[in-house]
Parts: sequence; C-alpha cells; structure tokens
Amino acid sequence: MIIDWKAIAGIMGVLLGALGVALVVPALVGLLYGEPEWWAFAATAAGSGIVGGGLWLAFRPKEELRVREGFAIVALAWFVLSLVGALPWTMTGVLDSYADAFFEVMSGFTTTGATILGGATTPQIEAVPNAFLFWRSLTHWLGGMGIIVLTIAVLPLLGVGGMQLFKAEVPGPSADKLTPRVSETAKRLWAIYVALTAIQVILLLPAMSFFDAVNHAMATLATGGFSTENGSVGQYGSAYVDWVVTVFMVLAGMNFVLHYRLLHKDWSATNNEELKVYFAFLGGATLLLTLVLWTPTGDVLPAPVTLDGEVVTQDVVDQTVGAAQAEADAAAEGADLEEVETESADRVGGENIGGGAQEAAELASREERGRTVVRYDSFWDSLRYAAFQAAAIITTTGFGTADYEVWPPLALVVLFALFFVGGMAGSTGGGVKVVRVLLILKNSFRELRQLVHPQAILPIRLDHRVVPEGILRNVLSFIVFYVGLIGLGTLLMGILGLDIWSAFSATFSCVGNVGPAFGAMGPTENYTHVPTAGKWILSVLMMAGRLEIFTVLLLFTPGFWKR
Amino acid sequence: MIIDWKAIAGIMGVLLGALGVALVVPALVGLLYGEPEWWAFAATAAGSGIVGGGLWLAFRPKEELRVREGFAIVALAWFVLSLVGALPWTMTGVLDSYADAFFEVMSGFTTTGATILGGATTPQIEAVPNAFLFWRSLTHWLGGMGIIVLTIAVLPLLGVGGMQLFKAEVPGPSADKLTPRVSETAKRLWAIYVALTAIQVILLLPAMSFFDAVNHAMATLATGGFSTENGSVGQYGSAYVDWVVTVFMVLAGMNFVLHYRLLHKDWSATNNEELKVYFAFLGGATLLLTLVLWTPTGDVLPAPVTLDGEVVTQDVVDQTVGAAQAEADAAAEGADLEEVETESADRVGGENIGGGAQEAAELASREERGRTVVRYDSFWDSLRYAAFQAAAIITTTGFGTADYEVWPPLALVVLFALFFVGGMAGSTGGGVKVVRVLLILKNSFRELRQLVHPQAILPIRLDHRVVPEGILRNVLSFIVFYVGLIGLGTLLMGILGLDIWSAFSATFSCVGNVGPAFGAMGPTENYTHVPTAGKWILSVLMMAGRLEIFTVLLLFTPGFWKR
Ligand SMILES: [K+]
Ligand SMILES: [K+]
Repeated sequence: MIIDWKAIAGIMGVLLGALGVALVVPALVGLLYGEPEWWAFAATAAGSGIVGGGLWLAFRPKEELRVREGFAIVALAWFVLSLVGALPWTMTGVLDSYADAFFEVMSGFTTTGATILGGATTPQIEAVPNAFLFWRSLTHWLGGMGIIVLTIAVLPLLGVGGMQLFKAEVPGPSADKLTPRVSETAKRLWAIYVALTAIQVILLLPAMSFFDAVNHAMATLATGGFSTENGSVGQYGSAYVDWVVTVFMVLAGMNFVLHYRLLHKDWSATNNEELKVYFAFLGGATLLLTLVLWTPTGDVLPAPVTLDGEVVTQDVVDQTVGAAQAEADAAAEGADLEEVETESADRVGGENIGGGAQEAAELASREERGRTVVRYDSFWDSLRYAAFQAAAIITTTGFGTADYEVWPPLALVVLFALFFVGGMAGSTGGGVKVVRVLLILKNSFRELRQLVHPQAILPIRLDHRVVPEGILRNVLSFIVFYVGLIGLGTLLMGILGLDIWSAFSATFSCVGNVGPAFGAMGPTENYTHVPTAGKWILSVLMMAGRLEIFTVLLLFTPGFWKR
Repeated sequence: MIIDWKAIAGIMGVLLGALGVALVVPALVGLLYGEPEWWAFAATAAGSGIVGGGLWLAFRPKEELRVREGFAIVALAWFVLSLVGALPWTMTGVLDSYADAFFEVMSGFTTTGATILGGATTPQIEAVPNAFLFWRSLTHWLGGMGIIVLTIAVLPLLGVGGMQLFKAEVPGPSADKLTPRVSETAKRLWAIYVALTAIQVILLLPAMSFFDAVNHAMATLATGGFSTENGSVGQYGSAYVDWVVTVFMVLAGMNFVLHYRLLHKDWSATNNEELKVYFAFLGGATLLLTLVLWTPTGDVLPAPVTLDGEVVTQDVVDQTVGAAQAEADAAAEGADLEEVETESADRVGGENIGGGAQEAAELASREERGRTVVRYDSFWDSLRYAAFQAAAIITTTGFGTADYEVWPPLALVVLFALFFVGGMAGSTGGGVKVVRVLLILKNSFRELRQLVHPQAILPIRLDHRVVPEGILRNVLSFIVFYVGLIGLGTLLMGILGLDIWSAFSATFSCVGNVGPAFGAMGPTENYTHVPTAGKWILSVLMMAGRLEIFTVLLLFTPGFWKR
C-alpha cells in the first residue's frame, strides 16, 4: 500500500487554486492604494491558480481519500502554501531574504503572528505597503479557517492526540473516510467565523480606519496577532479598542461548535467542562494579574518602577517601546549607543510624558527594562491591561498593549503558564488546548487516588462520559511530544547561538503559536536577528504545533512512506 | 480504616534512633579537630536517640506495615530527620536562620547539594567548622542509602510512577507488604555503596587530605554535590581528581542492583536497555560538549572569550569564580562595587594568571560573565571539563569544575537537557530517571506507528519483556507531575519575586535534586538570597523530587488520611 501521490497532488491542486483566489485580494488592495507592488500578488495568484488547476485536472482523485493521504495533505498544505505565499515578499524586494518571507507567511498561516518585520535588516511595519499588511492578516484569517475544519472535522478521523473526543459532538462525518459531510460542517462553522469577523470590524470602526479594523479583526478571530502597527493594539491607546479586541480574542479561543450550538439556542452547550475551565483560567489569570499590576500609591508593593526617583506609569513605557526596539536592533548591528539614544529620542519626540530624550532612551535600553518593574496606579487600567494580556496569551493571539517583560515577576510567571494552556479545542487558538490540560489534571488526581486504592477501577469522565483509556494515553503522549518538541527546538536554537532563555521561550512561543516570547524575542522585539537556519526551524515548529504535532512528526517516520 | 499513627510513630522512632547514632560521628569529628561546636551534635544525638527509643518502645508495630503507612513514613522520614538534623546549625549559631539550616540539611538528605553557605548572610564554606562540613556530607551519604532501599525495595511495592518494573529484578520481597526481605536486599546493596565509597576515598588520597577525600567520596556516591571547598571539585585544579570523581559519579548514577549482579559475575546484567541509554546519553553529551568547548586556535568558533583583546582560558576564569561569588553577594547587599573589586582581587591574589586585580574583577562581575563565552584550547582539557560536567549533571551530582554559565549557548542547552534525564532507576541519582525517558521515547514512536496502523496492537518492550499499559500510563503521568511540579514551583518562586529564568531553573534543579541551576542560582552562586518562604518551598520540592513526587503529593490528598 504505497502512498497515493496522485490523490495528494490532486488535492494540493485544489488548495493552490484556492490560494490563487485568495491572492487576488491583496492584489486588489494594492491597486486600491495605488501601490506598484500589486503585480506581485496578481502574478503569484495567476501562477498558483494555473498550477493548481492543472494538478486538479490531472490528478483529481476518483475515490475517497484514505487516512494516510489525509495526513500528508494536511502537513503539505501548510508548507507548500507558505512557500508560494512568500513569493510576493521577495519578488518585490519588500523583503530581501526568502527565509524571512517564508517565516512571515508560515507565521501567518499557522496564526502564530511572530514577525521578522521592524528589525535591523527588514522594513518597519509602517513602511510596508498596505497590500502586504493585508496579506499578512489574510494568511492569519485563512489559517484560522483551515484550523477550524482541521480540528473539528479532519483530525478526529485521523486519531490525533485525543481529538477523537470531539467526533461525537460535531454535526459532521462519522465514517473513517473523509466524506463530503466534512465540507458541510466546515461551511457552518466558517459562516460563524466570517460573521464574528464582520461584527468586530464594525465595532472597531469608531476607533480606527476601515483598513486597520479589517486587519485587526482578521488577526483576532484567527488568534493570529499580526498588527498593522509596530506597537500592536497598544498603538491606539484606546481602552475601547482594548476591550473590543479582548472580547473577540476570548470568542476566538472558544470551540466554534459551541458558537454554532449557542446560535441555535442550544443552551445546554454551556454545560461543558472545557468551557468552564477556559473561563476559570481566563478569570483567574486576569484577577491575579490585575492585583499584581495595581499599586494605588505606587509604593505599596515591593520594587515599584522608578526612574530618577519618580514612579513611572505605563504611558511613559508605552512610548519608549518603539525607541527600545530601534535601540535593540541598532545594538544588534553594533551601532554606536550614543547615536541610538538621540535617534530613539527623536522618534518618541514631544509626546514623551515627564521626561527628556535621555530619560526615555535610558528606560528603553534592554538592560534597564530588565531591571525595571512597571505597575499601574489605576485599578481600571490594571484590569484593562491584565484582561487584554491574559486573553492575548491564553488564546495565543499574542497581541500586545503593554511590554509585559517590565511587569512584576509574578505577572510574567502567570503569563508563561498561560503560554502552555492555549485555547479550547476546536477554536483557532494554539497551545496544548484547555481540554488536554483538564484531562491531564483529572488523570493526575486519578493516579493519586489509585495509589491509595490499588484495586479500584477509577474511570475518568468528561462531561459525564467516560474517557477511553486509549484516548487518555493519546493525550498524555501529546503532552510528552509537546514538551519534547520544545526541548528539541531549544537545543537547535542553542546550537545556533541564541541564549538559552530566549531560545527556550521563543521555541515555546512558536510551538504554541503564540508569537511574542521573552528575552531577545520579547513583546517589543522581533525575530529578525534569528539566524536563517533558525527561521526555518521555527517555521517548522510553528507548523508542527499548529497541526497537533503528530501530523507533522508522522511524515518524518520512515514507516509512513513505506507500507 | 484510619491511618495507623502508632505504627508510623514506632518506625519514626527507629529512624530517629538511627539519626542519633549518625549524629555521634560529626560530634567525634568536632572533638577530633578540637572544635567547640561538637557538643551541639552530641546533644542532638542524645535527644534524637532518647525520643526515638521512647517512640519505638511505646509504639513498636506488632504487625507488618500496610502500604498506606509505608507512604506516610517515607515522606515523614525525610521531613522529620531534616527538622532534627538542622538543629546543630542554629544551636551553635553557625547559621542564624533555621530556614537556612533546614534547607541545607534537606538539601543534604535529598542528595540535592544546593547550598545556602557562602552567601551574604551565611559563612563561607572555608569558615565552617569541620564537624558541620562532615555533617553535610554525611546527610548526603545517608540520604543516598535511603534512596537505594527506597527505589529498589520499597517504592515498587507502593506502585509509584512505574517503579513496579523493578520488582522482578530485585532479589527481594514479592509480597505486597513490607517484609523482612527488604532489609536483606538493602544490606547487600549498602555493602556495595560502602565499598565504592571506600575505594574512592583511597583513590582521592594522593590529591587531597583524608578529611576532604572522605567528604567528597560520600558526596559523590550519593550524587549529592556538597563540597568542602567553595570552588567545589574545581578548587583542586587537578585532572586526576576530576577524572576519579567523574568515574565515581558515573558509577553512582548506575542501578546498584547492576553493581550487585556484576560483582557476582552475572555478565548478562550488562544486557540492559536502560544501561545502554545511560551511557549513550553520557557519551553523546560528553562528545558534544567537548567539541563545543574545544577551540584549537581560540578564534575558529564564533565569539571566543576575550578580555582586553586576549583570549581567556579556563584557568583565569576558574580563579575568578570565588571572586565572582563574593562580588555577587556583596552586590546583593548593595555594597560598593569598588570595595568588592579590591576584596576579590585580594582573594585571587598572586595566583591570577595573566592579569591584574581589576581584570579579574572585571571578568568576575555577573554582567560580564553573562556576555563572556569560555572555550578551551586543549582537546584534553575540553574532554576533561566536558566529561566531568556531563556526568555531574546527568547523575544530578552537581559538582563543578567550571562555571558552565560562561560556556557557549549550545553547551548550556545540552546541560539543561541532562538536568531532566537524571540517573538510572535504582541509583542515587535524581531527575526523571533514564528508564522513564526511554519508555517515553518508545511510547512516542509507538504512538506515531499507531496513527499509521490504527488497528494494530503494538506492545512496548523493555529488555524483551512487554511493559504493561498501566505502568506506561504511570510513567507518562509521572512526567506530567514532574513538569507540573516545576511549573507550580516556578509560579511560587515568581510570587516571591525571583526573575523567571532563575525561578524556573532553580525549581527544575531542586525537583531533579541536581543542586546548581542558572541565573541567580548558577554554578558560582548559592541559594542564600532566596526569601525564607522560598527556602521552605524549595526544600519541599527537593523532597518531592527525591521521593518520586507521588509519595509526597499523596499526603496532600484528603482521601489519603480519611479512609
Ligand atoms: K498568535
Ligand atoms: K545533587
């Protein structure tokens, strides 16, 4: 039973054709804004469409797909579409390096949102043509659509990492072949996805341009995190925007089947353990972060942020984030620090509250930020930043309204824990998924009880149904794979010379499709300075994380291809 | 079926009596060296012996112990003996803080070797009376004895984390009660332990005093890591010492049942998968580290270490380690840096190769070390330091001959990976144990194969025997607990204000009973500056890690005590 390459080629043809259609949109955006780069999207669209159509006509599969080909297509789809989707970036010279372009597009399709823009060798986000900014957001949005159909309708059939649990819940296929009912399920859920995106666009319109609203809405629903601004969502400095995005990140991190059922007034859908735990994590983290960040008098908690003896508020820090980035990039190039300070001061300019150029540059320097701790003197500000960042991390969207690396240590630890959890299964969020964390916790308690009652049979239940032991082992194995993959990635990034904390947190972030990390890839940094080989490795890690690991690892096992 | 407190009290009496006997030895050491503090050991010995004897006489269990009481005794033993063993430290005022003393003794009994000595508020190791140095080593050695009997003869009966696997291999008990045959097994293995310690003492004698040799041998066989020198084993600057210690660390990281079988000429014992993987990890890590550390010309690899334009060799760095520690401690107290530089320069003194006082202090400062990368220009030096550190970390001994934090990033990542692996099951080493890592890897490959062959039954074999699925789930759950405990510990240490990387690596190190960590608890630092609450938390984490987690966690479940 050799793998059926023709069937794979046929389906890849469909996907390339779809990519061709998608690429027309950024071409139109470019035309609309009078950007000369629009041709690159048009040319790639035409090429992708023609090749895809040809493959489809030549290799159109006559029978239903088998499981083995299903696996190959899933992984190949993300890889090949990213290879093609990267072309416009380098064709136009907006990016010089194809590795950069591939990283950016894979980061888009996997809804990771890690960016190489804004670095020393890449353009600042504000200098990138709108067609490209839109293409980044569109890769997120399409990636999110792909993930919804994948996790709800495809992966359960393939038996990946406990995803079988969701088979029964979905108004979809029940056979072990990929049937036409998959597309029926997908369409229903996509309709919700599109509707939620549209509603968010409308809600964002009062506070930003139509272009920005569309881009941010697409990035939100996909839990992607690319922004059209260097300062991410924080750039708007609007509590209204922050709260709208927070709410829609939370919605995007929910199982879309739940949205479907709630829309059809099936209120029993809320009687769902994973949902309750998701909100418990969100609420708990928000509460904890709020309390940690809030310091009414500025000196109640230990080590409040001070600069030249004055307590520094978030506003000051917000405005030095850009300066910090420029400085870090310049430092990476070995530029003279004196020069950078002047430059960053110029960029921050007159907006800088309560400080001169040197003060801003001082706070901005990475060493300084490493020692600085920021808190807020208003409860509502604390809540706003806490809720936003908790939602941004647990849903793995990765948007930023604050440089969390200057938050108190406890806040960092809470955020880091959320890196692991991720969204609900069946959402567009990454991470290990709330349901797996829940099952692990249940299994842990069971193991302890088992020690006291060695003879007892203690089944694990989820939503009142017994979870088969095989699925439980799947879930435990998934966690081991997940942790192992992070270990391997850290090792590889270490080989490439990254410091261990940056290597570890960046790998963690990419496998979990979060985006920002800590250290050299912190929330105000980017991935530009990662060596080329590291960009390819992180790209594959993003893909592996996004496709529930098994799907990608399987392709690297010889047995998969042989028999 | 209420827990049988009387039986527990009776057994604790025996253990307290044994502790009383053990405490006589440091009392004698104190007398021998004419140290006035000997009385504290004598007094504690008497108290412990009297209370222990009384408990035994009053509550001597008439029946065989049940599993439940076995669990309670295991965890209580480490906790209570540490509480008592800490008394001489504070009775004599050698340490001011009981939390410090408890941490140090728990670190000893758990063979962790994390120390609070040499900090800003604690005496330097060289200033500590010999009786106390000996007591530290003795806690290691006794802890190692406890672990051997525990993992080979007790935990398998209790069904902890896959330890059942070893039931069959041990010439010991087969019933599900703790029978007298346990003590027979223990005695045989202890004889090997004592013999290996004696051999190492003899081998070390040409290079150090009898006192130092005994202490280092005890710390080696227990994979403990306490040293009588501030600079650990590196202080002797002897390749001979390094290699002797390396070999005995490797022996200590092996299953003592294997030693027993090999001693009885049962050569089939070498046909053991865990053993092969243990040496594969050791050999692979040593090779990798050697290649990474070795730079023949000093500038072949990127970023060789330079100081004022000259390549720095390990010798220079070795001698500034002490200075670095003094400086870091002083910095923690906010002392004037100028003063420290002079002080540390004085300590390094004339031995300093190729540099004046300021140069040494410069290299020694933590910031500088953070950016400095050390390599060796001799292959044999590279091999020596690589083999030592690989063995020290994988066996979780934690001795140091080099400040690995100034090694190249890849070396750090390799060491960090070894933090996780640990020694073989049935050794005195910590970590998750090689056999568990092996089973996880086998399970991972199985899961991938299962995806391709969903209907196939794919049993996992270890040494040609099928591993029951229940044990496999035990092992997977153990890993989840292990990772979860590190996460929880990091969270708690973050709450106490430690930076996230130090909090994470220190927790990792304590749960794995390694000792040194990274960052603020790196190989040249100590745990003195951890807040008091943190010392208690880390103490419990050391205990939990040492006792295979389940044993300790179980005591925190309400069900354990109720029925
Ligand atoms: K993301
Ligand atoms: K140790």
